[in-house]
Amino acid sequence: MIAGRERVRIGVVGLGRLGKRHAENLAYRVPGAALVAACSPLEDERAWARNTLPEPRLYHDYADLLADRDVDAVWLVTPSSLHAQQIVDALRAGKHVFCEKPLSLDLAECERVLAEAERYPHLRATIGFMRRFDPSYRDAFDKIADGRIGRPFLVRSQTADQNDTEGFFVRFAGTSGGIFLDCTVHDIDVARWLLGRPRATRVFAAGAIALHDGLREFGDVDNGVAICEFEGGKLAMFYASRTQAHGNDTHSEVIGTAGALAIGHNPRLNRVEIYDAGGVRNECTASFFDRFEDAFLFEARAFVADVQDGVARAGDGATLADALEATRIASAMRVSLETGEAVVLG
Amino acid sequence: MIAGRERVRIGVVGLGRLGKRHAENLAYRVPGAALVAACSPLEDERAWARNTLPEPRLYHDYADLLADRDVDAVWLVTPSSLHAQQIVDALRAGKHVFCEKPLSLDLAECERVLAEAERYPHLRATIGFMRRFDPSYRDAFDKIADGRIGRPFLVRSQTADQNDTEGFFVRFAGTSGGIFLDCTVHDIDVARWLLGRPRATRVFAAGAIALHDGLREFGDVDNGVAICEFEGGKLAMFYASRTQAHGNDTHSEVIGTAGALAIGHNPRLNRVEIYDAGGVRNECTASFFDRFEDAFLFEARAFVADVQDGVARAGDGATLADALEATRIASAMRVSLETGEAVVLG
Amino acid sequence: MIAGRERVRIGVVGLGRLGKRHAENLAYRVPGAALVAACSPLEDERAWARNTLPEPRLYHDYADLLADRDVDAVWLVTPSSLHAQQIVDALRAGKHVFCEKPLSLDLAECERVLAEAERYPHLRATIGFMRRFDPSYRDAFDKIADGRIGRPFLVRSQTADQNDTEGFFVRFAGTSGGIFLDCTVHDIDVARWLLGRPRATRVFAAGAIALHDGLREFGDVDNGVAICEFEGGKLAMFYASRTQAHGNDTHSEVIGTAGALAIGHNPRLNRVEIYDAGGVRNECTASFFDRFEDAFLFEARAFVADVQDGVARAGDGATLADALEATRIASAMRVSLETGEAVVLG
Amino acid sequence: MIAGRERVRIGVVGLGRLGKRHAENLAYRVPGAALVAACSPLEDERAWARNTLPEPRLYHDYADLLADRDVDAVWLVTPSSLHAQQIVDALRAGKHVFCEKPLSLDLAECERVLAEAERYPHLRATIGFMRRFDPSYRDAFDKIADGRIGRPFLVRSQTADQNDTEGFFVRFAGTSGGIFLDCTVHDIDVARWLLGRPRATRVFAAGAIALHDGLREFGDVDNGVAICEFEGGKLAMFYASRTQAHGNDTHSEVIGTAGALAIGHNPRLNRVEIYDAGGVRNECTASFFDRFEDAFLFEARAFVADVQDGVARAGDGATLADALEATRIASAMRVSLETGEAVVLG
Repeated sequence: MIAGRERVRIGVVGLGRLGKRHAENLAYRVPGAALVAACSPLEDERAWARNTLPEPRLYHDYADLLADRDVDAVWLVTPSSLHAQQIVDALRAGKHVFCEKPLSLDLAECERVLAEAERYPHLRATIGFMRRFDPSYRDAFDKIADGRIGRPFLVRSQTADQNDTEGFFVRFAGTSGGIFLDCTVHDIDVARWLLGRPRATRVFAAGAIALHDGLREFGDVDNGVAICEFEGGKLAMFYASRTQAHGNDTHSEVIGTAGALAIGHNPRLNRVEIYDAGGVRNECTASFFDRFEDAFLFEARAFVADVQDGVARAGDGATLADALEATRIASAMRVSLETGEAVVLG
Repeated sequence: MIAGRERVRIGVVGLGRLGKRHAENLAYRVPGAALVAACSPLEDERAWARNTLPEPRLYHDYADLLADRDVDAVWLVTPSSLHAQQIVDALRAGKHVFCEKPLSLDLAECERVLAEAERYPHLRATIGFMRRFDPSYRDAFDKIADGRIGRPFLVRSQTADQNDTEGFFVRFAGTSGGIFLDCTVHDIDVARWLLGRPRATRVFAAGAIALHDGLREFGDVDNGVAICEFEGGKLAMFYASRTQAHGNDTHSEVIGTAGALAIGHNPRLNRVEIYDAGGVRNECTASFFDRFEDAFLFEARAFVADVQDGVARAGDGATLADALEATRIASAMRVSLETGEAVVLG
Repeated sequence: MIAGRERVRIGVVGLGRLGKRHAENLAYRVPGAALVAACSPLEDERAWARNTLPEPRLYHDYADLLADRDVDAVWLVTPSSLHAQQIVDALRAGKHVFCEKPLSLDLAECERVLAEAERYPHLRATIGFMRRFDPSYRDAFDKIADGRIGRPFLVRSQTADQNDTEGFFVRFAGTSGGIFLDCTVHDIDVARWLLGRPRATRVFAAGAIALHDGLREFGDVDNGVAICEFEGGKLAMFYASRTQAHGNDTHSEVIGTAGALAIGHNPRLNRVEIYDAGGVRNECTASFFDRFEDAFLFEARAFVADVQDGVARAGDGATLADALEATRIASAMRVSLETGEAVVLG
Repeated sequence: MIAGRERVRIGVVGLGRLGKRHAENLAYRVPGAALVAACSPLEDERAWARNTLPEPRLYHDYADLLADRDVDAVWLVTPSSLHAQQIVDALRAGKHVFCEKPLSLDLAECERVLAEAERYPHLRATIGFMRRFDPSYRDAFDKIADGRIGRPFLVRSQTADQNDTEGFFVRFAGTSGGIFLDCTVHDIDVARWLLGRPRATRVFAAGAIALHDGLREFGDVDNGVAICEFEGGKLAMFYASRTQAHGNDTHSEVIGTAGALAIGHNPRLNRVEIYDAGGVRNECTASFFDRFEDAFLFEARAFVADVQDGVARAGDGATLADALEATRIASAMRVSLETGEAVVLG
């Protein structure tokens, strides 16, 4: 950073597990950021903020935070169903907005936010598809831009979580939007980002319930696969799983006309290899928290630096339009899963 | 092997590149086999046999080979379009049959062979899906049988060839059946074998032409992706490519309820790692010849041992029914690629 | 961190490449630290501090920094030959001390510092063997402590730098102490740390000049190997190189009676694998700066947290006694290299 | 092979576990070889030969085998202490000789064999350092010959066996010559082969007893390390272990002025990776039998082809002089282990 530049004053909204992570990053690890406010309806979350963060102003009401003139940007880590309206409100209050994914599970709502955001071109609004800020994904992106694999035409990408034997996500199935809207949106965004942001033209999806029968009543699955065709003859294949034994296994491949790149094929936890009676092994990242620890941090640094520099809109991050497209594609996958038929996108 | 057991007398038919490989294996590396005859319409192939093999009787006509009473089994490495009739003729002549894949690109013809083979239950007839004899695929199969990954429910498998800049396969596109019938049949067979031989219920396929525009007139692609749903909620995803930069990259994964297995993820040529200015790398297997060198050999040994032991039908190899199912599924993928719609299998 | 705890006020001394790294970490990435002062005799380094750091008090004279009452701790990133006296001076001035390795190349000087430090038991003094704070090395340490490999008895460890075609280290050879005192000290400290801090009893070393003939006049080599015997029948093997083609390749293995751990075997830069005509490869960390970026940060965080918590002496870091032992062993290796004989340590 | 070439008629001597492996290879997997005779003093071994091999003439006395005029070559898989005299006897009887390592544990005896062999320049005599025929070691050798790593100057190599809880090798310790003569000879031969067959000038060795205290009375260790200096400023580091948890882990590295090669770093059993609660792992080769299965076969093929082609002496295999040098170096390591001092070789 450059000493003396104006700090970006941020208010974090939502202090659940991920909100806390963001808050600590913004408070202590992002040069140029000042975490000046935090908002949560829950007293114990505000107590955590009081004890852990550097004297933030605490709000239990989002409207009060928006009224705080000494807040430049809001950082939304709230339930998905609130995102769209909270973004609109923030923009109307003159705040830059970072919002965790998804923009919304509802396409019309996504479009409404985009329309509103058009009116505030000087405000930054980005959706937290953090993989774009993971150093390895970023390296792959840069290598593609350098032409190192020729023309990229196919992405394979997966989001696979370690099996949660307590089935938390089953209880959450009614509001998550299902496996494609909840998990595969990340892969969709990665695919579009690495392939040059093409529009999708057709999808097909299928799924299986391996372990969690409780999903059946929600029309959801714990393992899903999908193919997406894009304009220009580009393709993507996706896999999402809630039932892995070995950990969070998020990886992607990009295949080009002159080579290919794989990102994160072995979800190794660190640089340690263990030699024992089972052979040679490495432990794996347990959750996306572990896998994308750096990405969450770099995402925050990029946002803050861009605001300081006056970089327009989303910078290297996902725009609202990217988020809308991810929702559009994932929604079509959900339809395909239900109908067993390919879905053509307009 | 056990000394003194009756040798299986074999006649190889077709002495192209792969036929030569089979012939040398049968002549010199398969205990219990006696390569006593070879058949080719081409004089230079017969000359090769004369110089290389241990005094085989040479035929230019398949019928003459079948009339040779001192041949117990025929080994067909002939053009795909001849397979079905040659198998039928061999069985009628009282010979065991090994035939390279595919059984036939035509479903009705597949069924005709199966019906005929019903009449010769004492004769072994198997189609050369050699991956089943690759030690790593076999190890995965055995581990699954041991319950090591719980219930397997998802296979991902790919056949990816190094780009042939001379485009041999483009000229071959009119008769190959297209990428799914030519390449993905192997992955289909692997998936069914590892998942317990389920029947397919629905497929969807898509494709792209990355480099070889000449395929367009044949309705073929040089990169294809597909999803296959099986009965019992099992799934498979496939990728086939003719355009890889790094070599032949054939690999598969099986995901179960309690773990997963990957076979051949890094298509390493051998155990050497090279440290140079580009980093740390390993070279890759150049072609399926290199990758499956052992599998071709073990496949031959298994066939011969089974014939000696009187093991019924295909032993560990693919039955004619397996081959029919692979053709049925790959044909549906071809239809899906053409129509853009999911294809339901009866 | 815990909000509200007293910040540790730090003065950094020396603003070369590594000093700048430390200064930026302390200024912006270490919760609980306040970088309040910086000292360098060079105007351009002070200018860098003025522009980059958050308003530190700037000194060109170390004595003036020590006289600054609002400095709690000094952070020495100065030439090796100054370390010993600067540590003593800092302790006498009542400051906690972090000092980059080595403590000193001279054993008697090391002992003098230890004797002096005995008089200030309330002050923290640690030498920057940063590998102890690398997450992978730390994970290995913890696994050993958990008994995961039984009793550890053998360490193999290497420090291998990418070849510097400009031969910077050749010009530096007169004062570096040679390859064992400059590079292998890190491995010696790792070995002792992982093996339970045993004393060495005998060493043997040998070396080769692969590329840099200019080292010959200094009695130094660009590739060195050594064996170290410790009390209790423990062993270590070391390799140090200045001439690698692929990057900085620092790795270690610990072998125990019930298993083994390898740390950093493939010096991969990140999680990207590249598939091209050369095969499958990963790029490597270019220098120890890249490899140990996190370790430098975690080392600083640990120091600051320990000072805040009043943790005695070096906490998880290397004590002055550890640093002395590393110098003692590496010096014996230098003698062994010169004489061709094993050197017994008292 | 070329059909019609004269077969090499071989008599195998010694039918223990390794002898059986060689015998089966020679009988069924080596084109150009005819296994016509087998010799063992043990009736059950001869019974095995009678049942398994293709009608060999069976001898219980080596002299009788040597008198068999229809034997062109003998294949010695006998106790080490018999090797030297058996080679001399074979040469005097006009037979080519393949002999398992070591030539002899006694240097004078090695020299006596070399002197005798000088008198039979038309007979092939080679010692079975099979790693030279492992495809990966061979690939590394070829790459070095192609100049791919510049000038090779350093080899690191290890022979590490899975711990034998029954301690077979402890009972064998009185006659094995100790860990360096029994295990490290392979690494010594590899190092010299990859470095251009230099002479050793100095060695230092050390060791530890990790698990098998019974070795102490033999002056032996279950883990040994050594450094070897060669003429021309070349170096080697060796590690030998009897106590690994994960399997047989034999690997080597060659470092050159322009790159490096590692052979077998991860002793993977095959191409399967297992994903389970422990992470991602691969199983390992259990013993040198598994690791070098191909090498034993290719070694036999090379011997037979060379005899057919009239290739002088050892071809690509180790000469008697190579075997003598390996014994000379390993013996010096044993002395170094006993004395704690470096040993200078004349």
